[in-house]
Amino acid sequence: MTRHMDYCDTSPAMHLLKVRSHQREELVEFTDEVQHKLKESGAEEGVVILYVQHTTAGLTVNENADPDVPRDMLHALRTLIPQHGMGFRHGEENSDAHIKASIVGPSITVPFKDGELLLGRWQGIFLCEFDGGRERKVVMMIR
Amino acid sequence: MTRHMDYCDTSPAMHLLKVRSHQREELVEFTDEVQHKLKESGAEEGVVILYVQHTTAGLTVNENADPDVPRDMLHALRTLIPQHGMGFRHGEENSDAHIKASIVGPSITVPFKDGELLLGRWQGIFLCEFDGGRERKVVMMIR
Amino acid sequence: MTRHMDYCDTSPAMHLLKVRSHQREELVEFTDEVQHKLKESGAEEGVVILYVQHTTAGLTVNENADPDVPRDMLHALRTLIPQHGMGFRHGEENSDAHIKASIVGPSITVPFKDGELLLGRWQGIFLCEFDGGRERKVVMMIR
Repeated sequence: MTRHMDYCDTSPAMHLLKVRSHQREELVEFTDEVQHKLKESGAEEGVVILYVQHTTAGLTVNENADPDVPRDMLHALRTLIPQHGMGFRHGEENSDAHIKASIVGPSITVPFKDGELLLGRWQGIFLCEFDGGRERKVVMMIR
Repeated sequence: MTRHMDYCDTSPAMHLLKVRSHQREELVEFTDEVQHKLKESGAEEGVVILYVQHTTAGLTVNENADPDVPRDMLHALRTLIPQHGMGFRHGEENSDAHIKASIVGPSITVPFKDGELLLGRWQGIFLCEFDGGRERKVVMMIR
Repeated sequence: MTRHMDYCDTSPAMHLLKVRSHQREELVEFTDEVQHKLKESGAEEGVVILYVQHTTAGLTVNENADPDVPRDMLHALRTLIPQHGMGFRHGEENSDAHIKASIVGPSITVPFKDGELLLGRWQGIFLCEFDGGRERKVVMMIR
């Protein structure tokens, strides 16, 4: 299947965001970048779909005020699904990352109105990195 | 960022649903309210997007026939991620709720045709409350 | 509520896919079928929404190169939420399947451009069967 890596910003409704992680496990917030691209598009009302093109990272929405919330989340997932010791067969020592990615999920959909994401007061949009640090690609669509 | 709390029913495609929980952990079904708003809109075919504006509650679709299914779900999540004892740092004693919210996810997307949600025979739409009881806001978009 | 089981391919934007599982727990890839229906539709740019009409199966995106990745995923979920021994009350001995279905989630949304799903290099679309083998219905919408 042909893979399209060159669609970045070729349409006002579609963007390729690059999100950089620096640790093996990290929640990287990128709310501002999404909001900025949404404003630029001029769209008034609809939904933003974010989709991560990787199998060891996911996307979520959670609290962005206290950094202990992302920390506790990674800690709990690591406790439940440790990198080693569960008898994984996949040879790259990152089965835990694949599993966490599917638990969190590869995409989120956030409504917007008047060009503003309808996030709750404490909500931010996070890349969930489970096998970094890396640059990760997130497709953003406005619909 | 400006937060929009007054967009309730200002557009035929967007609604603000309020879902009330009464316990700390509870699955609250609100399928009928979603179906009712969809019918009112007159839309024929598309998708309904539901998005919860909170960081300690999520949304899911699951069985609504036997109340033991939601009960077992909350029980299993509580067993895996207890409120206390995992060494959480976040000071509000609700890290478990934040984590469960991301595991279940903040949004669901359900297709519809002829103005009817295309739910399977046993499926209902639930707010997953992990830090209630409270009134929770769910944005509904028809697309 | 009237359930619509006859909407299969009545609209160019909506399809009913049937995905067959053969074991109680199995990840069944059906990327090619989704891509094929998308091509047939002639749609250029947008999102594909996939929605499973069952409460003991889910949908995910993950690696489709090494079969040990799906195997490890089912193994980890089974370790965390075994079929027996957690004190479940639901009488059908499939509470574990209901819970795993909500953890993975009932729907995924994948963007496309030029008629091609914007999947990452290693990504495939999977039905997550937790109470099979069965034929499962997945609604596909193009938007």
